[in-house]
Amino acid sequence: MKLYGYWRSTAAYRVRIALHLKGIAFESISVHLVKNGGEQHHSTYSELNPNQLVPTLVDGDFSLNQSLAIIDYLEQTTSANALYPKEAKSRAKVHALALDIACEIHPLNNLRVQQYLTNSLNITDEAKQLWVEYWMNVGFIAIEKQLASSAGLYCFANTVSVADICLVAQVYNAHRFNVDMSAYPIINKIVKNCNELPAFINALPENQSDAQ
Amino acid sequence: MKLYGYWRSTAAYRVRIALHLKGIAFESISVHLVKNGGEQHHSTYSELNPNQLVPTLVDGDFSLNQSLAIIDYLEQTTSANALYPKEAKSRAKVHALALDIACEIHPLNNLRVQQYLTNSLNITDEAKQLWVEYWMNVGFIAIEKQLASSAGLYCFANTVSVADICLVAQVYNAHRFNVDMSAYPIINKIVKNCNELPAFINALPENQSDAQ
Repeated sequence: MKLYGYWRSTAAYRVRIALHLKGIAFESISVHLVKNGGEQHHSTYSELNPNQLVPTLVDGDFSLNQSLAIIDYLEQTTSANALYPKEAKSRAKVHALALDIACEIHPLNNLRVQQYLTNSLNITDEAKQLWVEYWMNVGFIAIEKQLASSAGLYCFANTVSVADICLVAQVYNAHRFNVDMSAYPIINKIVKNCNELPAFINALPENQSDAQ
Repeated sequence: MKLYGYWRSTAAYRVRIALHLKGIAFESISVHLVKNGGEQHHSTYSELNPNQLVPTLVDGDFSLNQSLAIIDYLEQTTSANALYPKEAKSRAKVHALALDIACEIHPLNNLRVQQYLTNSLNITDEAKQLWVEYWMNVGFIAIEKQLASSAGLYCFANTVSVADICLVAQVYNAHRFNVDMSAYPIINKIVKNCNELPAFINALPENQSDAQ
């Protein structure tokens, strides 16, 4: 399998963790999101992924975008190390936590939104920082509350799931933007526990060959 | 089952379509997103859903947020009228299309983001309209391209799926904000086909008891 990604992309980071957890070998192909106007907008990549976002997984002649669709595809095709609980209600809770991050936090803070805030709305760097912090905090407050009743070592009891994958990548991004995480002790404990596991270590942005 | 929602919420609309497609009877409970500072922020609701967003599904003593997690839960627990294809690659493509809408278009245009743009960034109504149109068009351009190779009567061949559910609700929202949809003939054809089906008609915002 080939994974088109970028070391610091939150969504590509999620898929790297999943691939490592599943024990699936893959080739990383770097798509530089800033250089040359953003390589994700070049025709060679946009033909592969019309959304012009990373990641894209290529499995033989099959290409797939959207990190959570990719992780579900890996789950459907590789049963080892399940990333979703089997029981329907547990599965649903894990799924909802993953989507709380993927639909409510990440989309508001990704690169192209920040570019629009700067280039089209002409807001100051200070206002942009407040925007980032606002949406991260709105999301993390709700997640911390829910984790109080679901967490063990990880987001849902003591088994690593797709919720942990999304959480670890999002918290990495929060640190990158200097968001104060001190109000989220459960989140911090889970991220610490995850980051002791080899799959999470191997997937860290700074451990990728295109890291700068 | 009880569905906490709001007639004009795009995410609640998705779940209504899914419930009707599955033939599941449910009670609709309206959470007025604007009146009284937004009923989704009141403690009675925020204890049920810490994200303070609609929808929330309540099934006995089990409550669940995030529209796509709810739809997946319905899929796991009610096998009739599958909303995802069975084959892994087909399932993945449908899933990615649904997430292209749920992660890339909807989060940027929902109520609380529009409130932040107005109240915290003090942008003009004209700039806010351009924001809405920009993110809708970025998303729809990519989706139209992908549908050129996957669509039949619906997003993926001739069977209604979760991708159609997300598309119909998003296009309804686009019309509400007067987004010019003339560049998207495949999307328009699919939405027209869906809106001839009883489940989609029953789920229409204007057909809900709390519609204004």
